[in-house]
Amino acid sequence: MVLSAKNQAPRTKNVFFMKDTDISQITQEVTLLAKKAKEAAHELALLDSGGKNETLLKIAEVIAASSEKILKANSLDLAAAAKAGIGQALLDRLSLNEARIAGMAEGLRQIAKLPDPTGEVIREWTAENGLKIKQVRVPLGVIGMIYEARPNVTAEAAGLCLKAGNAVILRGGSEAFNSNKVLVELIGKAIAESPVRAGAVQLLPPQDRRSITVLSRLNGFVDLIVARGSEEMVKEVTANATVPVLGHGKGLCAIYIDKSADLESAVKIAYNAKVQRPGVCNAMETLLVHQDVMFEVVPKIAELYTQAGVEIRGDGHITGLVPQAKFATDEDWETEFHDLVVAMKVVKNVEEAIAHIHRYGSGHTDSIITDDKKTAELFLKSVDSSCVMVNASTRLHDGAVFGFGSEIGISTNKLHARGTMGLRELTTTKFIVEGQGQIRE
Amino acid sequence: MVLSAKNQAPRTKNVFFMKDTDISQITQEVTLLAKKAKEAAHELALLDSGGKNETLLKIAEVIAASSEKILKANSLDLAAAAKAGIGQALLDRLSLNEARIAGMAEGLRQIAKLPDPTGEVIREWTAENGLKIKQVRVPLGVIGMIYEARPNVTAEAAGLCLKAGNAVILRGGSEAFNSNKVLVELIGKAIAESPVRAGAVQLLPPQDRRSITVLSRLNGFVDLIVARGSEEMVKEVTANATVPVLGHGKGLCAIYIDKSADLESAVKIAYNAKVQRPGVCNAMETLLVHQDVMFEVVPKIAELYTQAGVEIRGDGHITGLVPQAKFATDEDWETEFHDLVVAMKVVKNVEEAIAHIHRYGSGHTDSIITDDKKTAELFLKSVDSSCVMVNASTRLHDGAVFGFGSEIGISTNKLHARGTMGLRELTTTKFIVEGQGQIRE
Repeated sequence: MVLSAKNQAPRTKNVFFMKDTDISQITQEVTLLAKKAKEAAHELALLDSGGKNETLLKIAEVIAASSEKILKANSLDLAAAAKAGIGQALLDRLSLNEARIAGMAEGLRQIAKLPDPTGEVIREWTAENGLKIKQVRVPLGVIGMIYEARPNVTAEAAGLCLKAGNAVILRGGSEAFNSNKVLVELIGKAIAESPVRAGAVQLLPPQDRRSITVLSRLNGFVDLIVARGSEEMVKEVTANATVPVLGHGKGLCAIYIDKSADLESAVKIAYNAKVQRPGVCNAMETLLVHQDVMFEVVPKIAELYTQAGVEIRGDGHITGLVPQAKFATDEDWETEFHDLVVAMKVVKNVEEAIAHIHRYGSGHTDSIITDDKKTAELFLKSVDSSCVMVNASTRLHDGAVFGFGSEIGISTNKLHARGTMGLRELTTTKFIVEGQGQIRE
Repeated sequence: MVLSAKNQAPRTKNVFFMKDTDISQITQEVTLLAKKAKEAAHELALLDSGGKNETLLKIAEVIAASSEKILKANSLDLAAAAKAGIGQALLDRLSLNEARIAGMAEGLRQIAKLPDPTGEVIREWTAENGLKIKQVRVPLGVIGMIYEARPNVTAEAAGLCLKAGNAVILRGGSEAFNSNKVLVELIGKAIAESPVRAGAVQLLPPQDRRSITVLSRLNGFVDLIVARGSEEMVKEVTANATVPVLGHGKGLCAIYIDKSADLESAVKIAYNAKVQRPGVCNAMETLLVHQDVMFEVVPKIAELYTQAGVEIRGDGHITGLVPQAKFATDEDWETEFHDLVVAMKVVKNVEEAIAHIHRYGSGHTDSIITDDKKTAELFLKSVDSSCVMVNASTRLHDGAVFGFGSEIGISTNKLHARGTMGLRELTTTKFIVEGQGQIRE
């Protein structure tokens, strides 16, 4: 499409001179987009699984065949990021290659294979007055998806939303703007050849953070915001939104080693939960140890941690047992380190462990290591977290491990979705009532 | 308990000189209360159904035996309301009598009989690595309940929250302050003789609207706010809250009479949905009629409406057919009249009816009257409302009619709870994972 210089100008301006853009212009642009998405959502709700899967496979095909175009756009993002001095880890997350593009396409094909969550009859009964009532799973409608750096998420999020019958408005990190723009164009190209209506997958314009706030306040047009990224980003989005937000919350996970634990297994699990991938939300931050086993367990796990470069911060018992341990401050018990740092504490009993988790935990994932059934039961019932475990690493609270196929994120919300979220969490329900002329007496 | 004048003073001041109270004092007071509630909630989560039901029956007993005390407090509220010039309808809602107090106690006994929603295993499976995973229904924790005028709601809300294993902080209308205060004192007295911990049912102090905002921003201590009352109140609470809010939304319900409808039944339903109780959220506001049946249906239903005192506002077809009808403005299509007023429109087909509902409806309850299966299916699938009906009055979307025993309200939210809400909607879920030493590879 050839745009006249006049038409082209404002959009270019939005990207490069963000602060000059009038908020009313942003509101108008975002509202128009959301209306288009709503119309597409109304049609998507009528589409069967076959039509949706056909669309997903078409998108996979177009993406797989366009790696040159995608890599060219990605190189623009990488160059800009390098110039801006972005760190190596972020650069790696941002960068695409042939294998990652093939992975995107394969991911979409996998989503096509997942069972369709919509149409499921959750319960069904006949009321006293003869009304036949069904509660049925249906699409949510329009989802706004706010995420960071990785452009792979663009294809995955679009695929998951479409599979659940929703239209989606995507807003990736500004670092990945060029990559995401090309990806959404390719998705649009595939959709044009599918039974899905244009507008089902759109990129949020313009490149101005205020557009996120506008989108997240469009009640009636937008049904859900999914925020996937740093704790600050999720907090910012949640604070400004009036549309409901599902976001990854804080993951301050604890493991408690009980006196009756198989100590060999306990050490293995505590090591795995801290060291295997410390930067993620289901990694363990706090290790609680029963006083009766501290002499056996603490020096052993401390040695392994130190070998792996883990910094230990502990209470008086721990610093007594572990020469290299620092004394833990109150702040350490409530910090999600996201790093090779662990807070360790000796407790009198399971009740003290539970009280510690109630006070400092974030309600994400907590695990007890014990061979005592009664103690395990008390822990599992008392600890008020999205996932409670016995004799397993917190790292295993994960959509793929659970067998959900794909994961939108892990929710620490208690409403709607709690714990690992799959396709089902991108749906809602409605009551369908069949009468034979019934009225209210 | 005897309070010194010094201790007593600030509380009295809060009630009578609201604006003088420091916000930091309110924050402190409300936070303390919420902490107590959280502790009670942790113990409630461990209580079995028997213990909860015993508590409910005890509360019923104490309330039933205290009608004199309750009526005395209620008379203070009624006198103040009369003095303030509150209307007759509101006075009636506010007023208690022996029968209404007996009804409260009976309501609690009914809640004791309802099945306990907690403990239900929603799904259960074994993951590939051998983890045994269960998704289990558990209490939400602490619920803030904001409601208006009727003091009956105090006992009912407390009962429903307790039955679902939650602690509750109640905030009724200021008109009912004295009645609610006595009721919560009586509930506390009953709880003291039950296995439930004090703090499980509390009244939100002080009588200052800012305390609602403080409560609804106590994330970590309060898990859910239920707002039950006028649209403005729900909007105000939702706008200020950071804790999730479930609120009765707008109920702009429509009925569409298709060309293939049983016209006698259609007229009966359209009459019932408008006239039987016009002031409630599931009453019909908009009547859509297929053009092929307008000559038969419109004059007949218009005559009945006029006899019942219903004001008719319609499009050109309607004003042509009904001499007493006024011409409807665009505002009429989007107004929840809550009164004996109806907006009527003739449409070309079911698609136009669906488009009208998509544009003006509030996603509450909409019904089609038709004997054509295909038309019904298209309507039921396309209309994106919490409840869609065929051949039934919208007034039947109701917890009691549905057989849920008791209703917290009707949610037009799409997240967590949609449509009529019962005990189940006062719970959340958690994953319980049993391992045998598994770690993340």
